[in-house]
Amino acid sequence: MPVVPTIDSDRLWSRLIDLATIGATGDGGVDRQALTEGESDAWDKIIAWSREAGLEVATDAAANLFVTLPGRGRSAAPILMGSHIDTQPTGGRFDGAFGVMAALEVLVTLSEAEIVPDRCLRAVAWMNEEGSRFAPGMMGSGLFVGQRDLAEVRAAKDADGNLLGDALDRHLKRFESLERLPLGFSVSAYIEPHIEQAKVLQHLGKPIGVVTGIQGKKTWEMKISGREAHAGTEPIGERRDALKAFVSIAAAMYAAIDWEGEPARFTIGRIEMAPNAPSVVPAALRFRIDLRHPDNSALDRLCTVLEEIATAKASPCMIDIKALVDEPGNGFDKDLQAIITEAASLEGLDSARLISAAGHDARYLSRVAPSAMIFIPCRDGVSHHPDEWAEPKHVAGAAAVLLRTVNNLLAIPNTAL
Amino acid sequence: MPVVPTIDSDRLWSRLIDLATIGATGDGGVDRQALTEGESDAWDKIIAWSREAGLEVATDAAANLFVTLPGRGRSAAPILMGSHIDTQPTGGRFDGAFGVMAALEVLVTLSEAEIVPDRCLRAVAWMNEEGSRFAPGMMGSGLFVGQRDLAEVRAAKDADGNLLGDALDRHLKRFESLERLPLGFSVSAYIEPHIEQAKVLQHLGKPIGVVTGIQGKKTWEMKISGREAHAGTEPIGERRDALKAFVSIAAAMYAAIDWEGEPARFTIGRIEMAPNAPSVVPAALRFRIDLRHPDNSALDRLCTVLEEIATAKASPCMIDIKALVDEPGNGFDKDLQAIITEAASLEGLDSARLISAAGHDARYLSRVAPSAMIFIPCRDGVSHHPDEWAEPKHVAGAAAVLLRTVNNLLAIPNTAL
Repeated sequence: MPVVPTIDSDRLWSRLIDLATIGATGDGGVDRQALTEGESDAWDKIIAWSREAGLEVATDAAANLFVTLPGRGRSAAPILMGSHIDTQPTGGRFDGAFGVMAALEVLVTLSEAEIVPDRCLRAVAWMNEEGSRFAPGMMGSGLFVGQRDLAEVRAAKDADGNLLGDALDRHLKRFESLERLPLGFSVSAYIEPHIEQAKVLQHLGKPIGVVTGIQGKKTWEMKISGREAHAGTEPIGERRDALKAFVSIAAAMYAAIDWEGEPARFTIGRIEMAPNAPSVVPAALRFRIDLRHPDNSALDRLCTVLEEIATAKASPCMIDIKALVDEPGNGFDKDLQAIITEAASLEGLDSARLISAAGHDARYLSRVAPSAMIFIPCRDGVSHHPDEWAEPKHVAGAAAVLLRTVNNLLAIPNTAL
Repeated sequence: MPVVPTIDSDRLWSRLIDLATIGATGDGGVDRQALTEGESDAWDKIIAWSREAGLEVATDAAANLFVTLPGRGRSAAPILMGSHIDTQPTGGRFDGAFGVMAALEVLVTLSEAEIVPDRCLRAVAWMNEEGSRFAPGMMGSGLFVGQRDLAEVRAAKDADGNLLGDALDRHLKRFESLERLPLGFSVSAYIEPHIEQAKVLQHLGKPIGVVTGIQGKKTWEMKISGREAHAGTEPIGERRDALKAFVSIAAAMYAAIDWEGEPARFTIGRIEMAPNAPSVVPAALRFRIDLRHPDNSALDRLCTVLEEIATAKASPCMIDIKALVDEPGNGFDKDLQAIITEAASLEGLDSARLISAAGHDARYLSRVAPSAMIFIPCRDGVSHHPDEWAEPKHVAGAAAVLLRTVNNLLAIPNTAL
């Protein structure tokens, strides 16, 4: 590839907006959750655009969607790029879809320029990144890298009691004519473009973020068990008030995090209390903790602090502590970061190094291949919301950087990847 | 009434248990909420028992049920006694029903003894004391004493959206043949027997409680408004976390109450958080406070303390403070208390003076007539629960004390009442 062709930024933007009509909620938002008819309809669009450009379409047992520009060396591990097209129920037009459409635009551009790369280039849309319909998220990439088990994933249920396995079968049946790639084929590199979902790039005024890694995350569900009593009669000293115990625990946790300072992130986002009646002393309270930190040793230390607080402050109630998510932070491939930085520079775009506060499929891919992410600013950091917005110039810029990145990667001899 | 007849304690007990079959939940509990078909069915039973004994049955515009033993002086204000027969959805067999059935037993006993008192003696079952189906409670007695407005009460809705007015019309239509008494006729004295719903009598080992008054109660709904944000990205220092503000407020309130000590009662029994999602910083939190104290000046002082804490600790969130209930404590009529104490003594039953921690219809009646309450122990103070239990001997003892009390009241010249 002596000359790098130019992506069609208008086509990319109009296809991105076109894709967002599937599941459109009418207020700018998109509700296109994993393995719904809407997601299947979105596949139809992507498949049509791919075939129109002479690209090959395939899937796998996890309903990940793959679009391939064949390379000369078909046996060499492909370069993979993309993200996901499922959304939150109150999702926006860019989270996930931008990364998939940028990757597709790169393939279409190269195909139209009749460029045959040394190895296959492949776009991907991972199954169920959001985890809003079927929890947890990042299932398709988790299955791909062997982090999750297919039988276990198939047993997940949505709020209506539908099995993921049934939704998966329905979806794959609709696309049974597609080639089936093996789950977990070799990958030479993975690049995921995504909106930042925070305000760092906007603050810095930079169009491109080179993501250094994803911060670690731990979550817990804790349940405090007290004793129901009449609010008017039971003396304060005899109570086992689950809410009073919670307030004591939470106050100490907030204080510990305030003392820790930046860049710790600590949230108690969900509470359920029983019987939750105005004149009844609360008998039970279940709550969820979300803790994140880019430094894994700090994350582990805070984990111990929070669990110790919960145990120490629950009296006279009982507390049950259940760890849910335990994802250490990961750093992305340093060479890939350098190649992306150079690609941005060649495109005349300023870039900033930053960490991702949210989780992405790239977290899993980084376990099996050199991986990295390209962030673009999103207005005021708003995401998972109908107001989610990315500027057309940022969308186009990142696709151009992705194309340059792929070009530079291809310049590296096969053996180096 | 030279000789006081003896109540039929077996009849009283069997009727009380019989009444509890209407709305029985199968686990010892009763679900017979206000103005349901169940309550109408319970009226049928009470009316049948009343007519069998030659008593007169009537109602009023508020669907309070009245059973009268006519006296010689029909124009003199009657002596009124009773309670309510509606229950909580997880109610027991004694809360309310015991007071109504004890009053009925007194009238039946006197009627069978062919005693014609100087003035009418009247049993009452007040409409919607519990307030569980239609909030708030004590509606029938509130309407009776002019504390509530009928149009406003009729506009109350249950959880299914049914208007109280419609339920009231349906119920009264079923009993349209009954005489209608005016709402708020004159009452010479009101006596309400009730289970204690606390453990004081059990601790003291006394079968009769002479209630000195009802402790004051204030309730609030407070709403904290913060800002929704991504749990992984928004820095702690930039957040307006509604739960963190709540924890700060609640911790200070619990500490103030702990410092105040007995006999203050403080409960945050209900919390609703939004969006209540594990990975989202809470944007809003609504909570209910229930504060009670037998000393009205202490109640007012604590009220000020709690409101000051809420205002001072809400930052960086906003707080909206709405007072709901403001019921100062009331003392019952001292002469009536003395008459009940003497009646218990004549029945050979030990009595203790105590304050009621819970609200009762007698709170309203005390505004228009000398009023008092007779408590009996209930096992372990359990109420609003299928395990609610009162001993047959305590039920019988209180009915006998009620009969003696009425007898002693009748001995007082009309002018004194």
